[in-house]
Amino acid sequence: GVPKLSAGDGQTPTKKAKKELSFGERAQLCSNAVSRRLFEVMEAKKSNLVLSADLTQTLQLLQLVDKTGPHICAVKTHVDIIEDFTSDFGARLAELAEKHNFLIFEDRKFADIGHTVSLQYEGGLYKISDWADIVNAHTVPGSGVVQGLKQVGQPKGGACLLIAEMSSAGNLATPDYAKATVKMAEEHKDFVIGFICQSKLASDPAFLHMTPGVQLQEGKDSLGQQYLTPNEVIAKRHSDIIIVGRGITKAEDPIAVAKQYQEAGYSAYLSRLSQ
Amino acid sequence: GVPKLSAGDGQTPTKKAKKELSFGERAQLCSNAVSRRLFEVMEAKKSNLVLSADLTQTLQLLQLVDKTGPHICAVKTHVDIIEDFTSDFGARLAELAEKHNFLIFEDRKFADIGHTVSLQYEGGLYKISDWADIVNAHTVPGSGVVQGLKQVGQPKGGACLLIAEMSSAGNLATPDYAKATVKMAEEHKDFVIGFICQSKLASDPAFLHMTPGVQLQEGKDSLGQQYLTPNEVIAKRHSDIIIVGRGITKAEDPIAVAKQYQEAGYSAYLSRLSQ
Repeated sequence: GVPKLSAGDGQTPTKKAKKELSFGERAQLCSNAVSRRLFEVMEAKKSNLVLSADLTQTLQLLQLVDKTGPHICAVKTHVDIIEDFTSDFGARLAELAEKHNFLIFEDRKFADIGHTVSLQYEGGLYKISDWADIVNAHTVPGSGVVQGLKQVGQPKGGACLLIAEMSSAGNLATPDYAKATVKMAEEHKDFVIGFICQSKLASDPAFLHMTPGVQLQEGKDSLGQQYLTPNEVIAKRHSDIIIVGRGITKAEDPIAVAKQYQEAGYSAYLSRLSQ
Repeated sequence: GVPKLSAGDGQTPTKKAKKELSFGERAQLCSNAVSRRLFEVMEAKKSNLVLSADLTQTLQLLQLVDKTGPHICAVKTHVDIIEDFTSDFGARLAELAEKHNFLIFEDRKFADIGHTVSLQYEGGLYKISDWADIVNAHTVPGSGVVQGLKQVGQPKGGACLLIAEMSSAGNLATPDYAKATVKMAEEHKDFVIGFICQSKLASDPAFLHMTPGVQLQEGKDSLGQQYLTPNEVIAKRHSDIIIVGRGITKAEDPIAVAKQYQEAGYSAYLSRLSQ
């Protein structure tokens, strides 16, 4: 056929129009207050590092978060592994979040029908919806899981990430599964602010892409977790945020290492911006 | 082509060989002590009813379980929705389990990487592995979730169900997903005793099939849960166990209604056996 002269040929004009936006620019495009705030924190602190603070003692956890706070945009918790949890945990963590300007993300991986997750999010001993800015959910239950969480979280200013892909070996989050997850997110943009994923999945710049299973060296653990580097995740796979757990929590000098991850993650982002 | 005279034509000899086994017969085929015990309880109490005791107050929950205990083969809990949980909860529930001869199934829907689920199962405030005979897991993380749970649960005599299918609208547990889940179960038969599913999925008679979303009338809730009847689930879809929550917990007379479900579930099973 006749070659088309449209602007959509992947060459100059369109390519310029599709130029990567900065975190600060993307903040302006967010209708959700939580994602807007997170993008602003990322830009202000020059950090796209989330610390996965998987410690089982409250004091140790809060101390680690206080020390690494300057280097992170959010802290990720598993509240149900804390041995000495008390009802002031959320408030104490929120104090640190205010002091160091980061968000709180409870990695609950809600995965039940809507009725049940609404009770799990709001109630029980943990009252997650009272202190977590962000939670996440598996999409295998269908959109009821999002509706159930939204009922509870939206009035309290919470937001949700959907787990579209996983970092563990042999996981069943297929490309079709991820695609259905993106669709579910697009249908609930007022509450869903992005994805847990292995690479960029959605073109809307308001969506955040967060990737767990990150270490400075590739590798795996004995239970199927697989690690990628910050550069692979951010510069090559175009995710936005690295989530780092044992790479920092098991380090001899967690503060120095958190700084290393912060720099590795952010410089990978800057290199992507300058492409 | 020429009609074949093989024994596998679905007629007499093979059909007789494939005759449905009773719960008591299947108990004898179980290598796992938990599934053996559950089949024995089902046979002895003439009950394939699991009560989903989704109450948020300990005393109410324990009272309901005590009253309906004679009619159930297991109780299913969501420990993380209990507002006044204390560390003796598991022991108090275990007392009732011994009194009424039923098993305890914590419906945690573990859904993280192996390292994390092992901490969630054993630790935190709930110490689920200390009191739950059975837990369940989503398979989207891959087999690491089973390995992580097995490390903790097997030495304590626990067992696990895998969630192969869900009852909620628009769920992403496709036939391929269910198939991969069955494969994962077959590879971990020493710890995985069956499935949360909508119909029979595996031919091994040692595997248990449990189906949630059961009420005496078909219907749905406002957050995408979809209900099937005991007869549909057990006689037509060849599942083994009905899981009933709000059908009993919201009833005016929960004991009478539990008895109704017990009879409906068990008579559907007997009608299947006599086919």
